[in-house]
Order: sequence, then C-alpha cells, then structure tokens
Amino acid sequence: MPTLPTDLTDMANVVINEATKHGKMIATAESCTGGLISSCLTAVAGSSTAFLCGFVTYANEAKTRLLGVPGDAITEFGAVSDIVAAAMAEGALAHSGADMAVAVTGVAGPGGGSADKPVGLVYLSLAESGTDAVIKRYVFAGTRDDVRRSTVGAALELILDRLREREDDDNQADD
Amino acid sequence: MPTLPTDLTDMANVVINEATKHGKMIATAESCTGGLISSCLTAVAGSSTAFLCGFVTYANEAKTRLLGVPGDAITEFGAVSDIVAAAMAEGALAHSGADMAVAVTGVAGPGGGSADKPVGLVYLSLAESGTDAVIKRYVFAGTRDDVRRSTVGAALELILDRLREREDDDNQADD
Repeated sequence: MPTLPTDLTDMANVVINEATKHGKMIATAESCTGGLISSCLTAVAGSSTAFLCGFVTYANEAKTRLLGVPGDAITEFGAVSDIVAAAMAEGALAHSGADMAVAVTGVAGPGGGSADKPVGLVYLSLAESGTDAVIKRYVFAGTRDDVRRSTVGAALELILDRLREREDDDNQADD
Repeated sequence: MPTLPTDLTDMANVVINEATKHGKMIATAESCTGGLISSCLTAVAGSSTAFLCGFVTYANEAKTRLLGVPGDAITEFGAVSDIVAAAMAEGALAHSGADMAVAVTGVAGPGGGSADKPVGLVYLSLAESGTDAVIKRYVFAGTRDDVRRSTVGAALELILDRLREREDDDNQADD
C-alpha cells in the first residue's frame, strides 16, 4: 500500500513532467493541507527538476513570518480568505525564488467553521512573476481528511491548468 | 481509505498531545520526505496547539535561503550529512520561533545513491533552544516510498522520545 493515494501521486507526476518541460520551478505555501501538496510532488522520483521548496504556514504568525502576509490582512479578512491566499502565494514566490507558487488556506474541520466560513471552505491561489495571482474558492464536502485530500487534487489541477495554458500560448506563438 | 497511513497519523496524534501537554511548539524542516512529517502532524484535528510551521527545503538553495544552512557545508559534506541535518534543525528553530525543530535529509532513491551514501541513508536531527542538536543516522531498506515512510516514523519517534525524556525529568524534579 503506497503512503500517499496513487490518484494524487499520478497527478503530481504529470505536474512535475509538465513543469520540467517548461523549465518552471514550483513552490508551495500550505496551511490546512499541512504539506500534503509538497509530499505528493516530492513522491515523484526526480522531482527536483521542478519542485524547489514549500512553506507549511499552519499558524497565523508563520504566515506573516515566513511569507510576509500582513498581520492586518489576517485580522481584517481572516486567515481563510481570498486576500490571505493570494498574499501567501505571492509571499512564497518572493521568498523562494520559484517561478510559480501555489498557496492554500482553508477550514479543514471538524472545528473552526462558522456561518460565513463553513468547514470545507478553501481558497487556492496561484502566483507567477509578472502576473496577478489567480484566486479560486471551493467548498469541499466530507471529513477533515476528505477536505484536505480534495484540496490537494484541486491545487495540482490548478498548477497543471496553468502549465497547459502556457503550452497553448506557446503553440499559438509558433503558428 | 484515509489519505495518510493510520500508523503514522496515530503516532502523530500522540506527538501532538504530548507536545501540547508540555506547551511546546514544533517546527519541521524536510528534504527527502517533502512535507510528509508535517502532513501527518496536521492530519490531527486541533494540531495548531503544538504545530507551528514547516519548511520543505527540497533544493539545496532552499536549505540555504530558507534555513540559513551554509552553502559551504553543503559543498563540503553534502546535502545528506549529519552537519547539514543539524544545520537544518537549528535553522528551522531560529527562523520559526518554535520550541523544538526536527529536520531530515536523506537519499530516498531510486537515483542519487553512491558507495558512501547509499539509497536509504537518512540523517535526522532534533534541535531545542538552549541545547545542542541531536543527530541520528539511519539506513532504511526498500523503495523510495518505503524510505520516506520509515523516515516519517523515525522522526515522530524522535520527537516523542524527547518529549517523554522531558516528562521523566519533570517527574524526577518533583521528587
């Protein structure tokens, strides 16, 4: 039985291959997933061609200290917010020297939910130098484990979509 | 089927409970495990009482940039060495504000092994403020996945042993 689910490590394998092909180094910044995204990416043998580093900023003070997320933004909008997700992604980019960074912040549960921010609410953000960070909002169903697992899948998909868009752009540029 | 093996998340649960009891915040610095240790710790609901943050310093430049591991040490002793493991643990402590930090660097394979540093060679280090970092050397058998999984188990055990030693000390002090 592999340590991590094969559906996720298979997807991570595709991400590493695509990123390597495009010469892009990836960084991650994870709150509720706690390192699961980077675990999946580094499960791929030879992933050092495309994975640079990850920040597991579980505590709010770590989001500020390691990624430079403004404490005011956390106070005003909450750690689980579009603003903080984007600041985490941009901070990971700036503090790592990577070409692209994916960030995640969410309420994995079972505690910590509210009417405004229910268990399962997750924001993902993807940042690349020279462009504004993209932000996506999800509400995943299930247990803490289900929410974390769904989030990893969505994060890998977000990176892959961006790499493939780039490929489309490259192909058009060749026409 | 849970995302992470229950033997590891059960052990992580004990670590979080013990650390919480002792008021200790934990940081991680992971190379070959790529975030698996922090994934297991944060799989525990309520782990924010004892888990502060993690650094996934997969690339050598990330070990230097994020943790302050001297580039000279990596050149002279190699990224997989007792010296670098200890520098990672001490760097994680200094850069996070945590009370204790566990670091891991190893050759997970299947490539990257040599006569001196075979696949499966792993160094773990545990740092706490006010004491010298402890370093442990292992050679784990099996696949890349086996080596990573065994390393997570050893890292959790190393933290737990330290927390329990502390408990023994506390009990003796009470006598």
